[in-house]
Amino acid sequence: MSNRTNRSELKRHSERGHYDRETIYRILDQGMICHVSFSLDGQPYVIPMAYARSGDGLILHGSPHSRLLQSIADGIPVCVAVTHLDGLVLARSTFHHSLNFRSVVAFGRARPITRPEEKQQALVELTEHLAPGRCAVARAATDAEVKATSVVRFEIEEASAKSRSGPPKDNPADMQLEVWAGVVPLRIERGEPVPAPDLKAGV
Amino acid sequence: MSNRTNRSELKRHSERGHYDRETIYRILDQGMICHVSFSLDGQPYVIPMAYARSGDGLILHGSPHSRLLQSIADGIPVCVAVTHLDGLVLARSTFHHSLNFRSVVAFGRARPITRPEEKQQALVELTEHLAPGRCAVARAATDAEVKATSVVRFEIEEASAKSRSGPPKDNPADMQLEVWAGVVPLRIERGEPVPAPDLKAGV
Repeated sequence: MSNRTNRSELKRHSERGHYDRETIYRILDQGMICHVSFSLDGQPYVIPMAYARSGDGLILHGSPHSRLLQSIADGIPVCVAVTHLDGLVLARSTFHHSLNFRSVVAFGRARPITRPEEKQQALVELTEHLAPGRCAVARAATDAEVKATSVVRFEIEEASAKSRSGPPKDNPADMQLEVWAGVVPLRIERGEPVPAPDLKAGV
Repeated sequence: MSNRTNRSELKRHSERGHYDRETIYRILDQGMICHVSFSLDGQPYVIPMAYARSGDGLILHGSPHSRLLQSIADGIPVCVAVTHLDGLVLARSTFHHSLNFRSVVAFGRARPITRPEEKQQALVELTEHLAPGRCAVARAATDAEVKATSVVRFEIEEASAKSRSGPPKDNPADMQLEVWAGVVPLRIERGEPVPAPDLKAGV
């Protein structure tokens, strides 16, 4: 990750911007899905994908026939966003309603990971990021399965984080209105695990 | 929304694809943040934004100085994605681990909404989508506030929905492994509302 240039610099609400690795890593490490965008013949595409951060890169995977992976593995410019929604900000005025969030927008390029051991390792990182501990219990990928998976590494050249947190900011003139104001926190909740219908008895 | 063309047609897992308005609307209506992508001089950008669906379009807003809004309001091609993460799919093999999700990818163009009454109406739709009922209690936007907001409408030309649901699909040979398999449901949970620290007593 290098210094920032015009493309990653926050123009609006620059006080909400962060460019340090620690903040950027923390936001990336808390997400499971990123939005990958690229442009083909002037037509932009944006696709949600599972990912794991590995150093200054993101590991992405899919079918060898994936149009997305084939396109970005050519080394074209790619932009990736990861966003966490943290709360609804309810103000006394509709104008000051807002959302609390944390997001990272990263710019870079992708390259295919083709060496089988490197692919295997990247897939382990991906599984462990999404479902920590599963590689110790689930059957590891066979050579054929690794072969049947395309893996690319998106190398972050520059990135910025943006966030909003805390209560609404209303105009002084509105503070006396009889309107409830505050934040409704939002977070991703894990429900009770649902066993597969064909789960072997006793497992 | 017109018929689908090559850009919106699902190439992989086409059985997970949907192109009907009802499915697409339902996914869009359950989201609060979309990822808006566009390309400037071959450089793709993707930015998270609050939105509301209105007919076959999405209402987006921001500062009149927003680089994003200025760029897309020029009528360049835009692609927008909305994604809901529904579950972690834990299989007996690492290869068959997956995520349950619903997503929409929409292609189209944006145009600025400039007439004050139309802008005011679009902002009401946006607030009501994100925080239903708030327009009845919070102070309405003044003319100056409406003026200080840029609003664009992204018109969907074509869109596709994609989803995965249900249990893991393992190989028959793996069904006897002593590995727990199933789904950990994920959903966005609303926490206890946190009143603003300067909330007027008694509200």
